[in-house]
Amino acid sequence: MGKTRLEAFSDGVIAIIITIMVLELKVPYHATVEALTPLLPVFLSYVLSFIYVGIYWNNHHHMLHACHKVSGAILWANLHLLFWLSLVPFATAWMGENHYESLPVALYGAVLFMAGIAYVILQALIIRSQGHDSVLKQAVGSDWKGKASAVCYLIAVFAAFYSSWLPQVLYVLVATMWLIPDRRIEHVLKTAKEEA
Amino acid sequence: MGKTRLEAFSDGVIAIIITIMVLELKVPYHATVEALTPLLPVFLSYVLSFIYVGIYWNNHHHMLHACHKVSGAILWANLHLLFWLSLVPFATAWMGENHYESLPVALYGAVLFMAGIAYVILQALIIRSQGHDSVLKQAVGSDWKGKASAVCYLIAVFAAFYSSWLPQVLYVLVATMWLIPDRRIEHVLKTAKEEA
Amino acid sequence: MGKTRLEAFSDGVIAIIITIMVLELKVPYHATVEALTPLLPVFLSYVLSFIYVGIYWNNHHHMLHACHKVSGAILWANLHLLFWLSLVPFATAWMGENHYESLPVALYGAVLFMAGIAYVILQALIIRSQGHDSVLKQAVGSDWKGKASAVCYLIAVFAAFYSSWLPQVLYVLVATMWLIPDRRIEHVLKTAKEEA
Amino acid sequence: MGKTRLEAFSDGVIAIIITIMVLELKVPYHATVEALTPLLPVFLSYVLSFIYVGIYWNNHHHMLHACHKVSGAILWANLHLLFWLSLVPFATAWMGENHYESLPVALYGAVLFMAGIAYVILQALIIRSQGHDSVLKQAVGSDWKGKASAVCYLIAVFAAFYSSWLPQVLYVLVATMWLIPDRRIEHVLKTAKEEA
Repeated sequence: MGKTRLEAFSDGVIAIIITIMVLELKVPYHATVEALTPLLPVFLSYVLSFIYVGIYWNNHHHMLHACHKVSGAILWANLHLLFWLSLVPFATAWMGENHYESLPVALYGAVLFMAGIAYVILQALIIRSQGHDSVLKQAVGSDWKGKASAVCYLIAVFAAFYSSWLPQVLYVLVATMWLIPDRRIEHVLKTAKEEA
Repeated sequence: MGKTRLEAFSDGVIAIIITIMVLELKVPYHATVEALTPLLPVFLSYVLSFIYVGIYWNNHHHMLHACHKVSGAILWANLHLLFWLSLVPFATAWMGENHYESLPVALYGAVLFMAGIAYVILQALIIRSQGHDSVLKQAVGSDWKGKASAVCYLIAVFAAFYSSWLPQVLYVLVATMWLIPDRRIEHVLKTAKEEA
Repeated sequence: MGKTRLEAFSDGVIAIIITIMVLELKVPYHATVEALTPLLPVFLSYVLSFIYVGIYWNNHHHMLHACHKVSGAILWANLHLLFWLSLVPFATAWMGENHYESLPVALYGAVLFMAGIAYVILQALIIRSQGHDSVLKQAVGSDWKGKASAVCYLIAVFAAFYSSWLPQVLYVLVATMWLIPDRRIEHVLKTAKEEA
Repeated sequence: MGKTRLEAFSDGVIAIIITIMVLELKVPYHATVEALTPLLPVFLSYVLSFIYVGIYWNNHHHMLHACHKVSGAILWANLHLLFWLSLVPFATAWMGENHYESLPVALYGAVLFMAGIAYVILQALIIRSQGHDSVLKQAVGSDWKGKASAVCYLIAVFAAFYSSWLPQVLYVLVATMWLIPDRRIEHVLKTAKEEA
């Protein structure tokens, strides 16, 4: 079974998720600066989530590049990841519209945490399908980024009830960590090619 | 006529269906647990429908893999299937927002029933286009899963007016039945390949 | 310049158009038959438009199959067609929600008329790009279907102000005319292949 | 790393952006001309933005045609462009619904300006990735169109607070400038091919 449709479907769902988020930027009735300012937190949370979904698309892209056989389990692990990503627009809007109050900020972190777990499951299934000398396994290594992200999300979820800035700092930190080009997979794939 | 665009278009429509369902999770105005709890039934019906649409995408994927010639009849049978699937978000939201009252639960079952019938029609047309030794025919066999699902949907539609839990049990049961990996088509295709 | 992205983009836009129409089926607040009945005209207009957009996708599919070179003019003629198709959800909802009153019914016809004209322009540009022995030219022939549709739409637009049923009959008639398998292009392409 | 998924994802996002704009054409409750006329400015701004997004898709199409290697930087520059384009529906609706008042007209220009800058960044990254004899570099040349557009947007943003027609004239002018077939890339690519 080919992976073309899996990629196409995932691209479609992620493209829709990243785009419908903007629908939560409700068009104000008046043409004044005052009408626009309440949208600022919604806009900022949109920017953050746009970057997060962009990171997921980017990494998903790399990961599937290294995957050759698509099993039923991989299909469902992929849908599981898309499910949690589909909740990002809701969490983003709730957080932005309530000006970063505790509960929405915690829920936002929880959705990111679950998406992270779903990503790790999908990654593990692809690695298992590749057998002993998995290229993806080598590329991911100890996956410290994935683990650090999960820990940061968890801290953010709990910190949301005590601090108004710590969770945001953590969310921005994790995003920045992933934005720094992740050449692990690219690199190992290249090396594997050159060795062959 | 190739099947690439048929797959691409179906992927697009199914990706949109599965994603716009989440728009029915209306963002609450307050940042409290009390504001979130009324969304629980909407969320649960979203999870159920996400799995159903995922199953359809998955099976559609396998079925078209076994299809080589796309006739006008197959094109329209496919659009017919997409039509009923496009009603799933409406039925899901109506059921969730009305806390699983009889009529919406029955309508939900009716939409699933019609989608099931549309799927069987599409399957029959593909099998007919493959002629005598249809690989898909062998793979599907007696199609007991399809038949059992249709019967369960029908029972659920009528049971909706007498029981509050039986239809839900049936919907979850059918979904579980399909979630258990359906290797029929994969298996027969593989065997056909090895024999050749 | 390849046509793959043109097809992919058109598929994407048409898939979104056909799917967002269903968002106009607003989820009723109550779980009663009385709450559902006002949606019936909206539903019927959705069914009609779903079939129309399906026909356009189907014909677009065939037409581009016969097109090999994509010029800038063809790209813009295609966007022009997509523009008018993008107004179908609006016209559909206005017609359905106002229970088929004169003005919305006329607007619906006008949008279909403009989409028809846009289709003919795109077709003419593709034929011109193919030169003398255009396969598409042979396939389309006198294009009586296209001409008859345009005339029917125009009659429907004016009839909308005098009759409540004539426009609907015309819309259903045109759709039926196109639903009857249009093997012209398929046929000529096949013949051209066999001759070669 | 292939560019197929980059194209597919961009096509998906642009297709959604161009289509969800039409959702801002809110279906009026009454079936009268009076109910329709307030939508005219919204409709006109929709037409303008449809053309702008069409131009971006068209140029993006050409530009990526000339791109062979997709780096991480190109991926993110592409997402950056999509981010600004995703704000077009919001800016369009705000401008149309407030009948072209100063602030929304300025914001519209600002979003177009930022999208233009993002496009130039993406273009520069692709040129850099092609090295010395970049085909795209030759094709774009001094990129006077890109520079003239940016200047026009900036003038429009400031003019919005003093004139009600000048910004609109500028927006239409820039769109027209791009609509006139841009054969630079096509031409240079063709020449490069013939020389080889």
